[in-house]
Amino acid sequence: MVQTFGALNNETTKFQFKLKLTTLTKRGMGKLHLVILVTFKDGIPPDQIDQLIKQYANLVNLIEPMKAFHWGENVSIENYHQGFTHVFESTFDSTEGVAEYIDHPAHVEYANTLIPQLEKFLAVDYKPEKLSP
Amino acid sequence: MVQTFGALNNETTKFQFKLKLTTLTKRGMGKLHLVILVTFKDGIPPDQIDQLIKQYANLVNLIEPMKAFHWGENVSIENYHQGFTHVFESTFDSTEGVAEYIDHPAHVEYANTLIPQLEKFLAVDYKPEKLSP
Repeated sequence: MVQTFGALNNETTKFQFKLKLTTLTKRGMGKLHLVILVTFKDGIPPDQIDQLIKQYANLVNLIEPMKAFHWGENVSIENYHQGFTHVFESTFDSTEGVAEYIDHPAHVEYANTLIPQLEKFLAVDYKPEKLSP
Repeated sequence: MVQTFGALNNETTKFQFKLKLTTLTKRGMGKLHLVILVTFKDGIPPDQIDQLIKQYANLVNLIEPMKAFHWGENVSIENYHQGFTHVFESTFDSTEGVAEYIDHPAHVEYANTLIPQLEKFLAVDYKPEKLSP
């Protein structure tokens, strides 16, 4: 009798665990990448660009749902970059995290500093998926 | 005198180390991301899009310098995506690796299949750098 109850409890636990995971997935959990492509306006000096990138990177320390920041200059040897010169890549745990980041005062202030210095700007969010071979 | 030599040797080591790092950077070592944004033409059925993504992912098995492939649909809640609907992200060890990939017959064949089905196409390469906080 004790063993039967034990097995039953075990199944209940598994079922609850599965339910919880499904709910989390539906609520938009899973790593999310925000990729931003920019071109700075002519005449913005390189040290000012460096400073803007450092300020962007520092948002990780100010905005909790922003988990990581990487950047790089476009080094494409093909000509499909449409003039974009810099890539900024931020990582979040969920779409809710991105929404929180967008509304965060530190992001709003930074965007108001960055955007007037840009010639071009493009932003996409995606959840990187890997296909099995 | 020993101390002076010690200090000198130390500086030489640092200098050599710096030189080596610079050489590695100039030779294009370090992880490189190729990010492609696309919009499929109207009327391309979803199962055909799935098939094209599977074929893209399969290039990892055919082209040695292509180390990883991830993809995702654009889920941006802002309106800066310029109509791009899919993100494809491939990883390489070097810019030479990307060049080898571009010229590889399997990539050329795939590009000739994919591109006629696209409305829009954008590609940037960058070496993701992390700034210390």
